[in-house]
Amino acid sequence: MKITLAQLNYHIGNFRKNKEKIVETIAQARRRGSELVVFSELTVSGYPPLDLLERKEFIESCLHTIEEIAPHCQGIAAIVGSPSLNPAPEGKNLFNSAYLLYEGKVQDVVHKSLLPTYDIFDEYRHFEPNTSFHTLHYQGKRIALTICEDLWDEQPIEMEFGKSRLYTLSPMRELIKEDPDLIINIAASPFAYNRIAAKRAVFTGKARQYRLPVIFVNQVGAQTELIFEGGSMVVNSRGEIVREMKRFGEDVQDIVLEEIDRMEEVEVADADDYIPQVHDALVMGLQDFFGKMGFTSAILGLSGGIDSAVSLVLAAEALGAGNVKALLLPSQFSSGHSVTDAERLAQNLGTPYHIIPIRRPYEEFEKLLEPYFRGLPFDVTEENLQARIRAVILMAFSNKFGHILLNTSNKSEAAVGYGTLYGDMAGGISVLGDVYKSDVYKLARYINRDREVIPEHILIKPPSAELAPGQKDSDSLPEYSTLDRILYHYIELQTPVDEIIAMGYDHDTVKKTIQLVNRSEYKRYQAPPILRISSKAFGAGRRIPLVASYPTEDVL
Amino acid sequence: MKITLAQLNYHIGNFRKNKEKIVETIAQARRRGSELVVFSELTVSGYPPLDLLERKEFIESCLHTIEEIAPHCQGIAAIVGSPSLNPAPEGKNLFNSAYLLYEGKVQDVVHKSLLPTYDIFDEYRHFEPNTSFHTLHYQGKRIALTICEDLWDEQPIEMEFGKSRLYTLSPMRELIKEDPDLIINIAASPFAYNRIAAKRAVFTGKARQYRLPVIFVNQVGAQTELIFEGGSMVVNSRGEIVREMKRFGEDVQDIVLEEIDRMEEVEVADADDYIPQVHDALVMGLQDFFGKMGFTSAILGLSGGIDSAVSLVLAAEALGAGNVKALLLPSQFSSGHSVTDAERLAQNLGTPYHIIPIRRPYEEFEKLLEPYFRGLPFDVTEENLQARIRAVILMAFSNKFGHILLNTSNKSEAAVGYGTLYGDMAGGISVLGDVYKSDVYKLARYINRDREVIPEHILIKPPSAELAPGQKDSDSLPEYSTLDRILYHYIELQTPVDEIIAMGYDHDTVKKTIQLVNRSEYKRYQAPPILRISSKAFGAGRRIPLVASYPTEDVL
Repeated sequence: MKITLAQLNYHIGNFRKNKEKIVETIAQARRRGSELVVFSELTVSGYPPLDLLERKEFIESCLHTIEEIAPHCQGIAAIVGSPSLNPAPEGKNLFNSAYLLYEGKVQDVVHKSLLPTYDIFDEYRHFEPNTSFHTLHYQGKRIALTICEDLWDEQPIEMEFGKSRLYTLSPMRELIKEDPDLIINIAASPFAYNRIAAKRAVFTGKARQYRLPVIFVNQVGAQTELIFEGGSMVVNSRGEIVREMKRFGEDVQDIVLEEIDRMEEVEVADADDYIPQVHDALVMGLQDFFGKMGFTSAILGLSGGIDSAVSLVLAAEALGAGNVKALLLPSQFSSGHSVTDAERLAQNLGTPYHIIPIRRPYEEFEKLLEPYFRGLPFDVTEENLQARIRAVILMAFSNKFGHILLNTSNKSEAAVGYGTLYGDMAGGISVLGDVYKSDVYKLARYINRDREVIPEHILIKPPSAELAPGQKDSDSLPEYSTLDRILYHYIELQTPVDEIIAMGYDHDTVKKTIQLVNRSEYKRYQAPPILRISSKAFGAGRRIPLVASYPTEDVL
Repeated sequence: MKITLAQLNYHIGNFRKNKEKIVETIAQARRRGSELVVFSELTVSGYPPLDLLERKEFIESCLHTIEEIAPHCQGIAAIVGSPSLNPAPEGKNLFNSAYLLYEGKVQDVVHKSLLPTYDIFDEYRHFEPNTSFHTLHYQGKRIALTICEDLWDEQPIEMEFGKSRLYTLSPMRELIKEDPDLIINIAASPFAYNRIAAKRAVFTGKARQYRLPVIFVNQVGAQTELIFEGGSMVVNSRGEIVREMKRFGEDVQDIVLEEIDRMEEVEVADADDYIPQVHDALVMGLQDFFGKMGFTSAILGLSGGIDSAVSLVLAAEALGAGNVKALLLPSQFSSGHSVTDAERLAQNLGTPYHIIPIRRPYEEFEKLLEPYFRGLPFDVTEENLQARIRAVILMAFSNKFGHILLNTSNKSEAAVGYGTLYGDMAGGISVLGDVYKSDVYKLARYINRDREVIPEHILIKPPSAELAPGQKDSDSLPEYSTLDRILYHYIELQTPVDEIIAMGYDHDTVKKTIQLVNRSEYKRYQAPPILRISSKAFGAGRRIPLVASYPTEDVL
């Protein structure tokens, strides 16, 4: 039986476009002699629809789209994801379902059992968990069809304080009783650079455990901050990956079921060498944010520092160099090299740029505020003033020409609150908000792998916000190499503070870092959406009460 | 048996302070001859702790606090809420539990079964649902102890597309088998002006259904955007409310169990006359936001319009008139009465204010941008420029003096995106972001009930942003009376669009309104936390994917 894996990029709620894509893929697969096309989770709506699932007309559109697709399944079957109504009088309104369509009709439906409700996932918010199990029957085969987390009953976890079994059920433990011929998993599993190997291990592990081939079809593309890498796979019953599909791009491939166990293991992208994948993820994230929002051009402030440099390059790759405008907005505290470095970068890329010194409006605000601030020292107020004047100018360009402002803050800064609200924290989307400063440097080196796109001087000078005379980041922050390790433990791994200190980090440095993280929750609350590339990004996946008093001073 | 209902205001994660409050309340109750003190849900940590529950040291602090409280329960018992560890190898790490403490020790523990996971609630994110039931035994009585939603197995819903039974379990159906003497419900149930009667009906309904007295102890106080009104109650077994405790304030009261059924129904605050409650909710919300964050003073831009006027009055009530500074920031488009109206209000209240015209920095930006905007018409860019210059000045004061900027946008504006990102949408907390414009007027009338605090002219002039010559809100928006009804149906009730039109609203007006709501999701993403007073506020309780294309033009 020839099976088609359809790894496609959907647009949430755009039923017409999603349907056309699905129907066209089915037609092409049939022409190639395929007997079954497998699409990813919640195909018709795109994933995650979030609270659109609470709207009656949205669900009706989902069900209607399934009805419209079914007639196209003649001489071929399709597995298509969609929400479905829970007919029981009790429980949540919906199931997260997969439809088996053939002979022009819905032949069978299965529902998702394990509903991820952690990090960026909120599935129990909308869906009732399934508790009864059956395999699909098609062409004499029994298919154990599972939906994403259904195969993750035992999961690799990086957090210190968590369980590998988040659920009391195991769908495969039930389905195996019907002696299936293969496992199919349809998913919308987002990218995390620190879970590449762990994710593959879920599928290879289940194949080995049940001695069955596994076909994994993942969604690809970005939905606001969430980036789905695709990377659909076929695993033979010995647990070897015999096919890995494109990462960060649409891909449709056929496989013959009976040949899977005769196929040889293929080489897959190196999980430890994650920088190229982060690069591709961010470029796709930008492309889809702009494409799905209907925007074509971006603008950013180019400071001469590494964050805006890397952001500019990624945006130029995603949107075309001509569609990204750079504004160089020097103040009296900007060094000469900032402007020349930034100019050279814009010229290397061929992006349009303007140089607009901010001294005049800065002095005007100083004059306006002088009667009230008289005699008070220069402090963070005047630093923020510069950052906010820049945002005013960038947003004026954004409003006048429809360019979307890119936020260029990195994750280290965002973590410790080293940024100005309504200033450099502004933007429609944050490019690097989930990339620690150390990795921003690695991205820059990767960008420069063939030729010097980013001027070398930008990579070697000490980081500085240039908001006060002679200022350097290291004046107020630990060195980034140390800071980033402490932050990774605190944020991604949620390691208890005393255990971080016990690892050998300086007590005061750890304490100061964690105080900074906790005290800047209020800033991050108003940050733009951040393209997510790790297992724990700032934003919807990390929910901290602003008024919390924890850890209190005495715990630290 | 004398029972004490302890309706207290906790600070999330402030274990020392919460513990002192709990221990002191137990000691005082014992001195009054009470035999049992009942505290609200997740007492020791405060509710909602959100993802702090994922930190090992946070949970250890919870458990440690329970251990510290237990020795104080000598000659008296206490029911105290806390997370507890789920010992099973499978399932979520934690239970949402209630501890029965007496004779200096933990005597019993029960866990929450129905875990609200909708709107602002994310309980299944952290907790395993309980599935086995038993009553507490104390002083010869059997107590059916339920935790908040456990009594809401059948709930009043205002949404069109929802079920009244969100759960397949009913804890009371199980507990009643042990023939309990009373029902105790400990809760952290937030205020919603449109659910006042429905909430009371849950408790009176359960009392009638099971012919048992119900003691309901709710948390009081605000935690960032969430406002808990208290309003703890005692209901007799005929379903009559015989005691209603303070709304929007701490309160501790005793009741004798054996007397409950002999007590007479009391009069409770009118659920339909909700404006006084919204007023009290917002004042408490501001007080707790500032108090728990450790801030003492606020600042806001006073435009001469009604939103900033009402915000200023509420802030003056919450923080003291001397602790709120008003900046009057007229542009060349501001009418003369705006400044005089605003000045008169500040004088009425006795709040300090400054008048700082923004014309000079506005002209400076115009000059700076002229080479790039030459020949292009005045548009939303120049309107936003004024709003952003104001935010720059307000934030400079905020940074220099530590005043927290209050956002004064109302819910109608926030819904249709009638506001400037990084301009008038800025602020540390939004006072009126969950109050429709029509209700802002009602709040103003309520504020003026005894004397004219807000100058009458502010209440009667047509609303205007005053960002362009002769501008009025009604130039680009429907009249607020119509707009607010359409928005309430779309946002709170989630009524399908065609049903809203079928109610008799103009098709184009509905279509335009809903397009505006959907197109401004990206703005609201970066809005400050909004004090929540309804069943559906913008913010964490409403999660819409920014890139979604829904409803598409053809559906509308």
